[in-house]
Amino acid sequence: MNTHTQQDAIRRVASAAGHLHGIERMLADDAYCIDVIQQIQAVQAALNKVSTLLLDNHLRTCVTTAIQGDDAEERERMLREITSVFAVRK
Amino acid sequence: MNTHTQQDAIRRVASAAGHLHGIERMLADDAYCIDVIQQIQAVQAALNKVSTLLLDNHLRTCVTTAIQGDDAEERERMLREITSVFAVRK
Amino acid sequence: MNTHTQQDAIRRVASAAGHLHGIERMLADDAYCIDVIQQIQAVQAALNKVSTLLLDNHLRTCVTTAIQGDDAEERERMLREITSVFAVRK
Amino acid sequence: MNTHTQQDAIRRVASAAGHLHGIERMLADDAYCIDVIQQIQAVQAALNKVSTLLLDNHLRTCVTTAIQGDDAEERERMLREITSVFAVRK
Repeated sequence: MNTHTQQDAIRRVASAAGHLHGIERMLADDAYCIDVIQQIQAVQAALNKVSTLLLDNHLRTCVTTAIQGDDAEERERMLREITSVFAVRK
Repeated sequence: MNTHTQQDAIRRVASAAGHLHGIERMLADDAYCIDVIQQIQAVQAALNKVSTLLLDNHLRTCVTTAIQGDDAEERERMLREITSVFAVRK
Repeated sequence: MNTHTQQDAIRRVASAAGHLHGIERMLADDAYCIDVIQQIQAVQAALNKVSTLLLDNHLRTCVTTAIQGDDAEERERMLREITSVFAVRK
Repeated sequence: MNTHTQQDAIRRVASAAGHLHGIERMLADDAYCIDVIQQIQAVQAALNKVSTLLLDNHLRTCVTTAIQGDDAEERERMLREITSVFAVRK
């Protein structure tokens, strides 16, 4: 992973975790359910952004290397992995 | 919110936050991108479960009270809110 | 279902079906995969809109009637159904 | 696109369109809203499957060719496109 993407992803995941700790407090304070659901949806959108950054980086590094390389099995594995993380997104 | 749902939701959100702290460490240790994406997808699935629990509780408490009550505006607001959190889910 | 929502939903679903027939032709003409995927995503967004319209209408009719009514089992069934269609959305 | 994937995708999209025509009739017959929403969700799941098939095929053909080729701009465009269809999936 390139260092810039790694630092950016760590920062975003730490921020999402902080957001979740805030949501724990909202729940403990008996906040309004819909407000809590909307905050959870905001965290999920932030995590989608992280996955997209990581996929972009992965395509430019590991996948590019594998496709340019000679190991057909490794190439096949890479492509299957991308399809599998795409399939989980709805 | 009933106490059981509240405790369950807090526990699940705390667990998701812990999971994200683990993902920060994976990123710092330069883990394989696809593994990180799959862990993020697991956290998102766990958060979907929390939203669903909260919506279920909300329908049985606030929404039921509003629909049985006399305040048409409040009732309207409740229904619009449910539609809006549903619309965000893809 | 109120007549306006029903007509609107029929029109939107017919339009989505027409869009899919266009996508069949794109595939037969060997269109670029990414263009096809983007058209499919547009159809899915249009269908999300229909589901949201139908849920909104359902809340204002069947669910409101059930919650104001005396049949506790029917009320319970209604609430479980909403939670279940929400749970499927990711 | 390879012929097998193309035929499979056409068949699946035609089937989804047929499913939508059935949903139009359900709506015209004033079917229960939740049943209609569940049928729409089934069509969306079927379309997700088509997008995943097309992405898998795209990675094995166009993307592999571009990554093995000499045109850096074309390669860049391909990778951005994959990231962009991934970003839309929630």
